[in-house]
Formats: sequence, C-alpha cells, structure tokens
Amino acid sequence: MALAMDTDALHGFLEREFPQVGQDFSVESVSDMAATIRLNVQDKHLRPGGTVSGPAMFALADVAVYLAILAMIGPKALTVTTGCSIDFMRKPASGADLLAETRLLKLGRSLAVGDVLIYSEGMEAPVARASLTYSIPPAR
Amino acid sequence: MALAMDTDALHGFLEREFPQVGQDFSVESVSDMAATIRLNVQDKHLRPGGTVSGPAMFALADVAVYLAILAMIGPKALTVTTGCSIDFMRKPASGADLLAETRLLKLGRSLAVGDVLIYSEGMEAPVARASLTYSIPPAR
Amino acid sequence: MALAMDTDALHGFLEREFPQVGQDFSVESVSDMAATIRLNVQDKHLRPGGTVSGPAMFALADVAVYLAILAMIGPKALTVTTGCSIDFMRKPASGADLLAETRLLKLGRSLAVGDVLIYSEGMEAPVARASLTYSIPPAR
Amino acid sequence: MALAMDTDALHGFLEREFPQVGQDFSVESVSDMAATIRLNVQDKHLRPGGTVSGPAMFALADVAVYLAILAMIGPKALTVTTGCSIDFMRKPASGADLLAETRLLKLGRSLAVGDVLIYSEGMEAPVARASLTYSIPPAR
Repeated sequence: MALAMDTDALHGFLEREFPQVGQDFSVESVSDMAATIRLNVQDKHLRPGGTVSGPAMFALADVAVYLAILAMIGPKALTVTTGCSIDFMRKPASGADLLAETRLLKLGRSLAVGDVLIYSEGMEAPVARASLTYSIPPAR
Repeated sequence: MALAMDTDALHGFLEREFPQVGQDFSVESVSDMAATIRLNVQDKHLRPGGTVSGPAMFALADVAVYLAILAMIGPKALTVTTGCSIDFMRKPASGADLLAETRLLKLGRSLAVGDVLIYSEGMEAPVARASLTYSIPPAR
Repeated sequence: MALAMDTDALHGFLEREFPQVGQDFSVESVSDMAATIRLNVQDKHLRPGGTVSGPAMFALADVAVYLAILAMIGPKALTVTTGCSIDFMRKPASGADLLAETRLLKLGRSLAVGDVLIYSEGMEAPVARASLTYSIPPAR
Repeated sequence: MALAMDTDALHGFLEREFPQVGQDFSVESVSDMAATIRLNVQDKHLRPGGTVSGPAMFALADVAVYLAILAMIGPKALTVTTGCSIDFMRKPASGADLLAETRLLKLGRSLAVGDVLIYSEGMEAPVARASLTYSIPPAR
C-alpha cells in the first residue's frame, strides 16, 4: 500500500513539530507497518563512561513508533503515547549511533501498538527492547 | 534506620556523577525505602504546547528510584536500570514542576524494584505512573 | 461518593459472568477507587513446592482491577484488559491466600489504569506488583 | 549450536515438573534462541463467549519463554519469572488453539529476556505480545 508520509515528509514533520529534538533523529527507512530510525548520538545523550543514557533510548523508542504510525495515518500531531515497557539488555557501544528497528503490531482506529529493538550500529545483539502504546485522536 | 545517604549527599552525588542533568533534579525528601524527587522543569523538557515530554517524565522516574536506592545502599554508581514500565495518564500542567513520589518495593542483594507516581505540582491526580527494576553490582 | 456496585453485587457478578473462576476470588473490601480482593488459594493455583503460580497471580491482579472499575461504573462486562506489567518480587508463602490491594489511578471515559500490590496473607512485604490498563466500552 | 533439550526432552520436563498444566502445552518447534509453543485450548481456558482468557495467554507466554530458555541451558527448574509486560491486541478466534512465537533476546548468566507474539491458529494478525524476564540460578 502507499504510505501516507515518506521519509522526507517525516523529516519535515519532525523539524517543524519538535524543533528542540527533531535533528537528533533520522528516518533510515520506512515501509508498511515498519520503520528504522537513527539516534544521531551527541554528548547530551551520554552518561559518564560514554554510554548512551536510558532516557535517550526511551526517547528513540518513543519517536520511532510515533513515526511508524504517522507514516501510515499521516501527520496527526495529537497522537500521544499512553504506555511503554522497556528492557535494557546490554551496554550500548561507545561512540556509535543507535538504530531502532520498529514494527507496528496493531493500528486500530483509536489505539496503536508497536515494538522496537534498539541496536548500537555495528553490534549484532540488541541493546534494548521496548513496546509502546499510542492513543490516536478521532478523525473529524 | 539510618540512611546511607541524606539529601545533601544525594545532591552532591548527582552533580558529580551526572554533570549534564544533575541540576535538573532536586531531592525534596528521602526516608526509609522512599523519596520524593523534583524535576525543575525547563524549556528543554517541554513539548510544543508547553507540556512536559514523555522522555523527561521517564528520566524523572528513572532518577527517582535510583536515588531512593542509593539513599539505602550508598553511592554505588554501577547500579543500572534493567527495565521500566510507564503509563502516561494525564497531560502535565503547563509551567509546573513535576514531583515523583517514589517507594522501594524490594531491595535485594542484586535486584531492586521501585514504583513512582508523578504529579504536576499543585494537581491532585497523578500524570504518570512507573515501575522500575535495577541491577545492583555485587559487593566487593 | 456512592459506589455503583457493592461487595454483594460484585460477588454476584463474578459468579454469574465467570462461573469457572468466580469462586476463586472474594471481595474483601471496596471503596472509592480502591478494592482489596482475595485469591482463595487451591491446589490448581500451586506450582511444585506449594507456591502460588505466576499465572494465578496475574489472574488475581487482573480481576482485582476489573472489580475496582466495575464498583465505580457498574456491570459493564465488555470492559477488557488491554495491557499489564507485573513484577514478581518474592516467593509467596506456602498455604496462604493472596490479597490484592488495588487502587485506580485513572478512570476516564474509555480508558482506566490501576495498580496492585499482592501480599501473601500474614506476610509484610509484597510478593508482586502489577499495573493494568482497561478499555471501557462507550456508553449507549 | 546443539540444543541442551530437544522437543521430547522439553515435553518430558513439562509433564514431570508441571503435572497440573503440562498437558496444556505442546512444543511445536525449538531452535537456537527460539521456540514455538502451542496452547491446546480447552474449556478451562475460555471466557464467556468462547474467547481465550487473559490469564491463559499470560500462562502461554510465560511457559513459552521458559521452555526456550531451558532448550538452551538444560532443565534448571529453579529458573523463575521476574517480570512480564503483555499487551492484549485482538480478540482470539473462537475454538482455535493459540501459538506463541518466541525468541530470546538475551541469555546471560543470571538474567534472560524473551519476547513472544501470540497468534490464534489460522489468523494472520497477532492477538497479544509479551516480553518476559527470568532469573537463572547460579551454577553449582
């Protein structure tokens, strides 16, 4: 099926709606019910020792599922996260970007569920897993 | 029982170990297996519309349980978050700090579990709830 | 405020709607946005060694929040669980019933959130914690 | 790599260690860090209306990750579930068995993490997703 928003449209949305953090993330790829999102790791994302912080990984998982949803339904900025469970499994590699491999498991009229595996670029085993639920505002 | 770290010791630890974000948080109170931690809300924590972002609430819940653990066991910086589940229940009040009311439900030798209710200061109903698990490094 | 269903009404509902498991649970107390529910532990709930199984604790947490919701809104059998996170923290005592201390953190028109601490009767520390989300069917 | 337990060994373990519920589950397949487990749906697993209950789905997810772990490390019965997050996404098909497609995301010395997609046999979209954490007892 045709996506409602492609990579360029998602980048434009991020920069317009989230001016403070939009540049932190890039859309690597997007397809039917799936997306891969990059966290461009910067000093502000790091903990002492050079590892990416938990809140930065949470933020990546959150935006990754959000963008995968918007790619399917279009730019509904009022879509909000209602819940997340996340497991931190390994220490991220120092100095490497993170990649969030994301799939939508449910995309209903009012509720969406997605899950994410987060990888340090170049590492084979995932550093974190997360699942997230979103509330989608009713169509007018 | 006597705490291993009091409010001043926790503040010093935060500023020393987390120079980038330590000033974002204040310890309101700490007691046996419990703490209340404040997020000093700043522009960087906000989403468009002036509401506190999900990642900022996650960061508050994470640091709140971490500090409640350290108050009991002392400054073991290697204590790491292994998992979190969080539910976002209401929109935070605009322009208000957040307060995380935290209790430890389990503090074992190698594993701790805590939960958190997050409030917008001055609002009666909680804006989010979270539960977190931590791995505690073995004593030497 | 007046409850929509009291202890007797909740018991009747359980036995009528859940004939297979209704007798496993008793309502100890119910009040505004809170309830305490008992699992009458029987052989079928036990694991080898005599400890209550994880699925039995999940079932208790699930029914406890469900009953706390129905006490507030009345017998809407179509209310369904949409998610749960649960942490198993200690081994339940052998041969003791379980008690689920439940509070509702949010009761919106279409979504409810509750959390639960599960205790072995007579033990001070909780054996498990859980948080659950429910979808409430629209009023006709 | 060679598995520590194959399908027959896992079935024998289930029947020996979990006499009350072992017959409810079958191992469809097992491989390196992955397994597919079937819930042989019976009356006791059903809610009014003929749909499989939430606790039965939780039990399936729990046993599925447990068996995937044991296939890798051998019959360590003391391996225990420490946490689970589960999302119920669709109503299971009436009268169909459930299949849990399971993968291990981490298998450390003391901690394992797995996730599960649960399907009604013959339905394309998953009815539930779950992630679980386990504590593995130290080797003697």
